Amino acid sequence: MSFSRDVVAIGNAIVDVIAPADDAFLEANALAKGAMMLIDACKGEALYRRMAPGIESSGGAAANTVAGVASLGGRAAFVGKVAADQLGEVFAHDMRAIGACFETPPLAGAAGTGRCLVNVTPDGERTMCTYLGAANQLNVDDVAPALIEAAQILYLEGYLFDPPQARRAFAKAAGLARAAGRTIALTLSDAFVVERHRRALLEFIETEVDLLFGNEAEIGSLFEARDFGAAATAIRGRVRIAALTRGARGSVVLAGGESFEVAAAPVDAVVDTTGAGDQYAAGFMLALARGRPLEACARLGGLAAAEVISHYGPRPQTPLAALAVAHGLD
Amino acid sequence: MSFSRDVVAIGNAIVDVIAPADDAFLEANALAKGAMMLIDACKGEALYRRMAPGIESSGGAAANTVAGVASLGGRAAFVGKVAADQLGEVFAHDMRAIGACFETPPLAGAAGTGRCLVNVTPDGERTMCTYLGAANQLNVDDVAPALIEAAQILYLEGYLFDPPQARRAFAKAAGLARAAGRTIALTLSDAFVVERHRRALLEFIETEVDLLFGNEAEIGSLFEARDFGAAATAIRGRVRIAALTRGARGSVVLAGGESFEVAAAPVDAVVDTTGAGDQYAAGFMLALARGRPLEACARLGGLAAAEVISHYGPRPQTPLAALAVAHGLD
Repeated sequence: MSFSRDVVAIGNAIVDVIAPADDAFLEANALAKGAMMLIDACKGEALYRRMAPGIESSGGAAANTVAGVASLGGRAAFVGKVAADQLGEVFAHDMRAIGACFETPPLAGAAGTGRCLVNVTPDGERTMCTYLGAANQLNVDDVAPALIEAAQILYLEGYLFDPPQARRAFAKAAGLARAAGRTIALTLSDAFVVERHRRALLEFIETEVDLLFGNEAEIGSLFEARDFGAAATAIRGRVRIAALTRGARGSVVLAGGESFEVAAAPVDAVVDTTGAGDQYAAGFMLALARGRPLEACARLGGLAAAEVISHYGPRPQTPLAALAVAHGLD
Repeated sequence: MSFSRDVVAIGNAIVDVIAPADDAFLEANALAKGAMMLIDACKGEALYRRMAPGIESSGGAAANTVAGVASLGGRAAFVGKVAADQLGEVFAHDMRAIGACFETPPLAGAAGTGRCLVNVTPDGERTMCTYLGAANQLNVDDVAPALIEAAQILYLEGYLFDPPQARRAFAKAAGLARAAGRTIALTLSDAFVVERHRRALLEFIETEVDLLFGNEAEIGSLFEARDFGAAATAIRGRVRIAALTRGARGSVVLAGGESFEVAAAPVDAVVDTTGAGDQYAAGFMLALARGRPLEACARLGGLAAAEVISHYGPRPQTPLAALAVAHGLD
């Protein structure tokens, strides 16, 4: 069977504003280190005023994953809402320039393109405050059935459980993918997202999801588990494949009775962990779409994640396809 | 005598869009490697569509220098025109967040904030296409006499010889600074700028400029000289101090009968040379404002330049003041 795309993803269309910060800054601004917090435009402006000079980069979790799949040489499409403004043009450019399909019409309205204020501490950890803006208004009409049905894997970000309209778009896409016999993948996105929507997420995972991505904090939050082992035991049997990332400790994959660990790919210096999980999902899914064994999926995920944490910004700066070839993972 | 600021600079307020490219891309798009080309909005959009995914960073030559002076712990102000749009807000934020003064009112008009499309080749060389937008409309009213008179050094970029209104603002500022007995510094900016305005620039240098910055190509273009030696001989006696940068070969300073070379500060890997000359000028001028000998000025310039070429983007990502202390150049 052939598909016109490897991955179609639905997520918040976001431009990141990335700046260095220290732990004292996080404390002074009541920011939970490593987490993502939703803020309104007014709070966003106030926080931005206090932040250091930054750089801007297209972001958004699932959008970063789509960029990663495209950079690896895969065929990917993204569905998400920007506004008809300068940052929206930047987002659309970066998506198309990397070779991904992005055809969601921009929002004609007052809300600007969504922004994520990313404060990166010297340990490379990122702490995010997101103003959703136009992304908040992704709706069911933006989900084109043909696009979903033609892709081997539908990838959804847990962040979309927050905006009510987007959540309906999410459900519509899952229904279309399931009816067409596609693989449905979900990333938990953030421990606080999981906390806010635990029951609904768990129900969605058990009924719709084939492939689940999450890090230690997220999977722990999903099951209110004491430790990683307990959470890993709890997810077993609820999804066909769970790929759980553990930062410098690599990842653990659980599939049916099988389970294995893959070490993290080596990195000279961790500069900014923004996008690590997103790129892991990109590598994992493209290898899966190409019929590779699960261990190769986890390795390609780890390789893509290692590239993105070695520089500022959530998207690859090196063509990942060449990197995969160099590591025998193409 | 004490000044309320070390440096006040006037320049084009620009946001850079920085993306990787190869030499074939430059050729296919008729871009002269290493140069800056002015383009209109329409050409800018067409080129942007062909460029790779990028990152956005506040830029503008003199603005980068102001950011460098502030990062070194100096007191600096910038005068330049942005529009009342998203990129204009980014520019203003980054200037203020680094501790510089930026009070030029944004343009209320149709033109957007100026953009510079920077294509960076694997050798680290940057090739720039600039759409001036609002920057084109900086005018004499934007030059506040009190701001110019209170700064020890007025720094002007040669790029301002292009927009006619900005050039008048430039002349006004120079007049104010001269009347107040301040030091007037100029950077030649670009070999093609020099070619377009050779006679006017030379006259301005001879009558107004105390401190001239330029690289090999620029000073060569100014005197239509065969080689660097001939150009260096030609500039001698026309300005009090000429600080000429030679990339990996460091810089040469000529002042009265004196002349000396300073080696480039070592860099692990040259990633993107955007902003190298701007940061050299920042280090040089702040040391000069603090009364350091010329050799220390050239060394601090070289140190600031080395930081900025080791990463993407034209502004320091490390606080330069700490770097200066670590190298005994504070």
